[in-house]
Amino acid sequence: MFDLIVQNGIVVTPLRTFKADIGICNGKISTIGDKIAGDAKETYDASGKYVLPGVIDVHTHIDHLGGGAKTNDDFYTGSISAAYGGVTTFLDFAMQKKGEDAREAIKRRRAAADGQVVIDYGLHSNLTDLNEESFSALESIVEDGYSSFKLFMTYRKAGFIVEDGVLFALMEEMSNKGALVGIHAENDGICEYLTEKLVKQGKLSPESHAVSRPVLAEAECVSRAIMFAEATNTPLYVFHLSSKKGLDIICQAKNKGIPVYTETCPHYLTLTAERYKEAEGQNYIMTPPLREQEDIDALWQGISQGYIQIVSSDHCAFNSEQKAVGKSCFRDVAPGIPGTETLLPLLYSEGVCKGRITLNQLVEILAYNPAKIFGLAPEKGLICNGSDADLAIIDPNREIVLSKNTIHMATDYTPYEGMRVKGYPDATIVRGRFVIKDGIFEGSRGFGSFIKRKKFAIY
Amino acid sequence: MFDLIVQNGIVVTPLRTFKADIGICNGKISTIGDKIAGDAKETYDASGKYVLPGVIDVHTHIDHLGGGAKTNDDFYTGSISAAYGGVTTFLDFAMQKKGEDAREAIKRRRAAADGQVVIDYGLHSNLTDLNEESFSALESIVEDGYSSFKLFMTYRKAGFIVEDGVLFALMEEMSNKGALVGIHAENDGICEYLTEKLVKQGKLSPESHAVSRPVLAEAECVSRAIMFAEATNTPLYVFHLSSKKGLDIICQAKNKGIPVYTETCPHYLTLTAERYKEAEGQNYIMTPPLREQEDIDALWQGISQGYIQIVSSDHCAFNSEQKAVGKSCFRDVAPGIPGTETLLPLLYSEGVCKGRITLNQLVEILAYNPAKIFGLAPEKGLICNGSDADLAIIDPNREIVLSKNTIHMATDYTPYEGMRVKGYPDATIVRGRFVIKDGIFEGSRGFGSFIKRKKFAIY
Amino acid sequence: MFDLIVQNGIVVTPLRTFKADIGICNGKISTIGDKIAGDAKETYDASGKYVLPGVIDVHTHIDHLGGGAKTNDDFYTGSISAAYGGVTTFLDFAMQKKGEDAREAIKRRRAAADGQVVIDYGLHSNLTDLNEESFSALESIVEDGYSSFKLFMTYRKAGFIVEDGVLFALMEEMSNKGALVGIHAENDGICEYLTEKLVKQGKLSPESHAVSRPVLAEAECVSRAIMFAEATNTPLYVFHLSSKKGLDIICQAKNKGIPVYTETCPHYLTLTAERYKEAEGQNYIMTPPLREQEDIDALWQGISQGYIQIVSSDHCAFNSEQKAVGKSCFRDVAPGIPGTETLLPLLYSEGVCKGRITLNQLVEILAYNPAKIFGLAPEKGLICNGSDADLAIIDPNREIVLSKNTIHMATDYTPYEGMRVKGYPDATIVRGRFVIKDGIFEGSRGFGSFIKRKKFAIY
Amino acid sequence: MFDLIVQNGIVVTPLRTFKADIGICNGKISTIGDKIAGDAKETYDASGKYVLPGVIDVHTHIDHLGGGAKTNDDFYTGSISAAYGGVTTFLDFAMQKKGEDAREAIKRRRAAADGQVVIDYGLHSNLTDLNEESFSALESIVEDGYSSFKLFMTYRKAGFIVEDGVLFALMEEMSNKGALVGIHAENDGICEYLTEKLVKQGKLSPESHAVSRPVLAEAECVSRAIMFAEATNTPLYVFHLSSKKGLDIICQAKNKGIPVYTETCPHYLTLTAERYKEAEGQNYIMTPPLREQEDIDALWQGISQGYIQIVSSDHCAFNSEQKAVGKSCFRDVAPGIPGTETLLPLLYSEGVCKGRITLNQLVEILAYNPAKIFGLAPEKGLICNGSDADLAIIDPNREIVLSKNTIHMATDYTPYEGMRVKGYPDATIVRGRFVIKDGIFEGSRGFGSFIKRKKFAIY
Repeated sequence: MFDLIVQNGIVVTPLRTFKADIGICNGKISTIGDKIAGDAKETYDASGKYVLPGVIDVHTHIDHLGGGAKTNDDFYTGSISAAYGGVTTFLDFAMQKKGEDAREAIKRRRAAADGQVVIDYGLHSNLTDLNEESFSALESIVEDGYSSFKLFMTYRKAGFIVEDGVLFALMEEMSNKGALVGIHAENDGICEYLTEKLVKQGKLSPESHAVSRPVLAEAECVSRAIMFAEATNTPLYVFHLSSKKGLDIICQAKNKGIPVYTETCPHYLTLTAERYKEAEGQNYIMTPPLREQEDIDALWQGISQGYIQIVSSDHCAFNSEQKAVGKSCFRDVAPGIPGTETLLPLLYSEGVCKGRITLNQLVEILAYNPAKIFGLAPEKGLICNGSDADLAIIDPNREIVLSKNTIHMATDYTPYEGMRVKGYPDATIVRGRFVIKDGIFEGSRGFGSFIKRKKFAIY
Repeated sequence: MFDLIVQNGIVVTPLRTFKADIGICNGKISTIGDKIAGDAKETYDASGKYVLPGVIDVHTHIDHLGGGAKTNDDFYTGSISAAYGGVTTFLDFAMQKKGEDAREAIKRRRAAADGQVVIDYGLHSNLTDLNEESFSALESIVEDGYSSFKLFMTYRKAGFIVEDGVLFALMEEMSNKGALVGIHAENDGICEYLTEKLVKQGKLSPESHAVSRPVLAEAECVSRAIMFAEATNTPLYVFHLSSKKGLDIICQAKNKGIPVYTETCPHYLTLTAERYKEAEGQNYIMTPPLREQEDIDALWQGISQGYIQIVSSDHCAFNSEQKAVGKSCFRDVAPGIPGTETLLPLLYSEGVCKGRITLNQLVEILAYNPAKIFGLAPEKGLICNGSDADLAIIDPNREIVLSKNTIHMATDYTPYEGMRVKGYPDATIVRGRFVIKDGIFEGSRGFGSFIKRKKFAIY
Repeated sequence: MFDLIVQNGIVVTPLRTFKADIGICNGKISTIGDKIAGDAKETYDASGKYVLPGVIDVHTHIDHLGGGAKTNDDFYTGSISAAYGGVTTFLDFAMQKKGEDAREAIKRRRAAADGQVVIDYGLHSNLTDLNEESFSALESIVEDGYSSFKLFMTYRKAGFIVEDGVLFALMEEMSNKGALVGIHAENDGICEYLTEKLVKQGKLSPESHAVSRPVLAEAECVSRAIMFAEATNTPLYVFHLSSKKGLDIICQAKNKGIPVYTETCPHYLTLTAERYKEAEGQNYIMTPPLREQEDIDALWQGISQGYIQIVSSDHCAFNSEQKAVGKSCFRDVAPGIPGTETLLPLLYSEGVCKGRITLNQLVEILAYNPAKIFGLAPEKGLICNGSDADLAIIDPNREIVLSKNTIHMATDYTPYEGMRVKGYPDATIVRGRFVIKDGIFEGSRGFGSFIKRKKFAIY
Repeated sequence: MFDLIVQNGIVVTPLRTFKADIGICNGKISTIGDKIAGDAKETYDASGKYVLPGVIDVHTHIDHLGGGAKTNDDFYTGSISAAYGGVTTFLDFAMQKKGEDAREAIKRRRAAADGQVVIDYGLHSNLTDLNEESFSALESIVEDGYSSFKLFMTYRKAGFIVEDGVLFALMEEMSNKGALVGIHAENDGICEYLTEKLVKQGKLSPESHAVSRPVLAEAECVSRAIMFAEATNTPLYVFHLSSKKGLDIICQAKNKGIPVYTETCPHYLTLTAERYKEAEGQNYIMTPPLREQEDIDALWQGISQGYIQIVSSDHCAFNSEQKAVGKSCFRDVAPGIPGTETLLPLLYSEGVCKGRITLNQLVEILAYNPAKIFGLAPEKGLICNGSDADLAIIDPNREIVLSKNTIHMATDYTPYEGMRVKGYPDATIVRGRFVIKDGIFEGSRGFGSFIKRKKFAIY
């Protein structure tokens, strides 16, 4: 007796695309086959639709305070908007305050999310201060399922930056301990110098944002962190890679066998710095900034060749009023754009439909690789006997128009307003339960679970 | 109603290892699941055993005349010995005679194999002469399912060598035509010069074999063919790679995006040139020759990192009497060693059991990658709904001793005499039918089919 | 008492450009200084002129039979034309006939040149056949002052090609013996295949020449020979490099420490394959053929960065009637163009005057490097106390128009007809004696000496 | 009438070694030749001796306050000790105090040196603070002859470090302005973290010095600065390179055409970190620290291949009492060792006599390259007509034992105590005047001149 059978769908795995029924029991995939025999409490007809493993968005900022502004979502509303986009698991951050035990930040975020989320989630430990208490807790943090860290190599003024000694100390300490050390890679000195220079010159419009944070700033930090990773033999994860030059450095390192992994985001794959010239150019301000077409081309190629393993949203739901605060000076705009709901349709439309990646690569970068790299496999990220029944079901023929009026993210704008996309989910299933069904939210507050992630293992 | 259910096994795919039943109908995998419901004509209990996709041995020389000697097997006996080793599909060669239409060679081999083989098979077109008739037939050869070619860059004396103009012409002609151009990479000039020199010096023992065909000879041809592949944008396959230096060149090319693929063989992964010093050193003579331990280490690493995609046997079943003919001079030994039956157990024992590769990588290099690269996927090479039910079932705990007395290959010796291995199959299933069951041959002459392979597509 | 004082000139060395007098005794530079005190039999006023070390043209084909045609010069007339261009030493070839002892070829060329040349000269031993007699004579050939070899990797039909075994054997034998092994690098198989194809297609005009001998043909041979050089640790010299791709391979090898040296020629630095479209396109046929502008740019950069050490002429003086024989088919044109006389003015005009190289680099590539690499230093190639008084004196302001009517080479055309150049010598001095003075030949038949060159030493 | 003729010496230039007299007039080399004719006020018999261009030591810390200690020399005594070692020109630093106009520092140093020095000298502008006054003065500083800068990428605690924004700003501003930007390359964060860790662990002996400042710290800063240099197209100079890893990065950059130059020092070429285990291990403390034998080997090779252009002393004359202050903790030792006097004999003995470099390379790295790179050529660094008559004359057969008792540097120890060396000068001549003659100081206070250096030009 199955709890649910998803019938007649076209199942997509990293290796194959094939027609099959999926039988689900107790939240797990129990059987994959032609016309599954046996009773079922419920059946869902996926005829003509793609059945994908649920999206794992490894980079969100829900219920987040940054750049002086607070995002409009909380873990309940934020996780609902993710579910609308086919996301079944997301990874957010537990950002330590200066002086604080890093475990306190984790507790605070757990308290905010547990009982609220409608899909599963996990947390990266975002260190800003490697005080003694935190330093001695590192191994236990990893053991407790927070097996990835994030450090800022920029934002000195905001107090987020960690000095090289801290990054090095963390890597040295975490070598061979199953932790993945992630970085926000932008050279603070360069960005601050150029920002000051532009402000002095009175170049205050959003266009200056891209000028103030050049490719060199990213590439240099990527290079530096890779040298630390090589020296300490500790795996490195580069968050939100935006540039060809940064990618080139990662390619060289990977080819030398240094354990470095990276993600990019939909905006770096679809938008250029030209956007900053628009009337509401500040709505496109995030860090790193948007780049040029040659970067877009290089990033798609990097995905296709496997040098970029993951695409995440870097979701950060400010509304246009908040962004407009900084209209008088680019420096004062809270950085970040909304995106978890649009991650899958953008990648499907711009990637698969345009022939840049295959359907099988799509599930690799949105589900399988995230699961492998962040310690969620094999329960998550795969359509396979015994795995969690986390599914995103899309109708390849249905096209929608992205619009602030139809998205479910807690913002009043989308950077993709008016864009026609395919691949927006019909249904999202988490552990065998419909969270979204035929475009309607059917989930329940608190159904989502915190996922204690496994340690990092070389992929 | 299933024809066969393989029950309780531990199923291995490139992505996962999980416990499941496999239900088979009409030669295809119909269902994968927990305790499959429904009737079955037959069940096989695989409790505690690994259920692997059947091995695809892409490099055999069955019923082969070479170096003046004829192998002892034919397509019936040769394919039985392969089945004993878990092989469900093999690719052999249709070697053109000088002046002959290449299609004649194919016909000749089809006539010898069809109706004889007990497992499925395909053929590479082995060109020695690009005469006009053959040249104009190239596309039709590919269309007919012989979508890979082999050319010798050595063996001038035997008349097998093709000049650079022929290799270049073939590549230029086959660019973007879905063909994979394979090479035996050894610089003839170097090998001939050194062979002559050794013979003149009276250094005639088998030890001279390795000296006469140095790593440089392989590496140079690999490099040259890669330059042709780059210039013509035609995919290249390097057969039986044996050296670290050759591998380094392939790594650089792959990292630059040149479409080059390669295989190595079990003997290059387990034996060194020290063997030539043994009393029956001539029994280890094959080309390229055995190398050093550092080559072994590099090749395993190349497999692990994905630079080597396939391991094949280069099976060639001479017996010791035939090899002994050349005892008086290394140059006169017919090159080749038996190996298709021992391919899987050697890779499982030396690879998986010794921690050099994972179980999932094992099925990649022996089944999934061969199927992808040689146009057999997704029917072959995968345990997935809808694929052919080609399976090799091994008991991870059962250890056997390799011996000339127990192998089924048509030889009176094995290079691995006395070696303890695990992973020798209990059962081999081809399209849902047992060919080997509990160690007994249950197949039937002619059950195997010629497989018309798809065109090569970038992997 | 000086024999000659060259007064008031601007002396150019690889390191400096400075005003000084040069005092000469017994054919040697005896003093360099301000207003040299002391008597002199003769003084030459070089006020306002550059005094360069005499040009060493390491690649000429004087009195040469090739491609079915005989050049129009002999060692007397050829050496006079070289002297007009500021050349004080040239290196020509002693080309072995098949089956012949290589020393016979040397004797033949010595007989033709000794007593005839008006400037100094040396010979490369050009091997086409490594028969036993020649093989055993290799060391003595080097000892006798012929410390460089040349081998053709192409021209199978003409019987000049050596197989890889010969090249490898020579390198293995000459490792650490002070010999420099030079190659003509073009893959014969590729060139022959493409030539046949073009002829079959009826594409017979000179334009096909460049198509039939593509960059790949050169690059592949360069790569192959470098692998041999690395394996045998024998220094390699690549004659007449023509392409960016070939240069890239040499750069990589040099950066890895492999002992490879190369030259290019004025035509590869000034002319593109567009010339083959001209009415008398056959007049530009030489091998390798002319390339594209990007190759020109890369070659200049290679000179400037030191990856190309020498520029030589590859002088081969056919006349236009001889070239026109092949007008009906590009394949039948005897390859080669005249050039020793125009080497210096072309490099001065296109290199120094256009800012691509400095005046100091000019003397490096035309005098100092040739002397170092080919065992002529320190007697030749330098303006330094104790060195031979070999000088080329140019007036930086004097411009001439290159024309078939004014050149002294034994041809009735120049590829540079109508080109305005500076740097054509006013005077050429060999061992203290004027050979050219104020544009008039003042030398004497047989004044030139054969130079027994030193062994090659790492530069 | 010559002022001085140096007779019968063996003159060494980067290109040749030859016997000649050198005639000097008005401080300049006037004539080089065999047995110079003409009268002379003075002659010096250099029979059997090498006559080298005077050493240019581009890195000294005379009259220097650092690490809490003041060196024992002043510009008079320091310059005398340099002259004893064959140094005819040295470059020291004008170190800016925080907040100060960089030109003030220059004035202060000029006041201390002018009228005191017995040989010629110049100054690098050592910036610690790019305040507005200094920033706007940059071009005038270069124009005034201080065409090279130095910045510390370490020493945060001492207040010497500049942030990345400052380094980037300087490079951006100085792009194509003829300035050479030099760095002390050690990652402060890494060094500080490791120092703290070692101190906490109670590992206080001198051995910890090397552990606290690992190769990674140097290599990372070299890499970072190179990225800045590439982005701004500004030439970079890496002071006192100590490691193979750092060198590898420089090699790669140079091979890519990035304008990076570097020096190493005699101690990095002769001593390993083993020295820190000695009883007076603190006497070897300098930054970067001593490394391993493989670094020594790589640095010699880097010199030989031209990747390292200069060897300087990094002279810093503390005495053993001052060093002993830090005996209780490695962190408290003032870093620096004496060395200008021993630079030439160490390089001659360990380099030339041991066959690692040629005599010609010796004068390249100690005289010619320093002059070219630091805007002193062609007046300095060359033995050539018209250049300054700056000479160091050594007797290749005279061996001395280095000892604290015989050196003239203002210290009571030498790191090379008891070492037998050749190449200690017999005479040092500056602009035609003997400063050292037959081992006796004959110079006069204030004879040395400040040298206004030319702008940097690509070498």
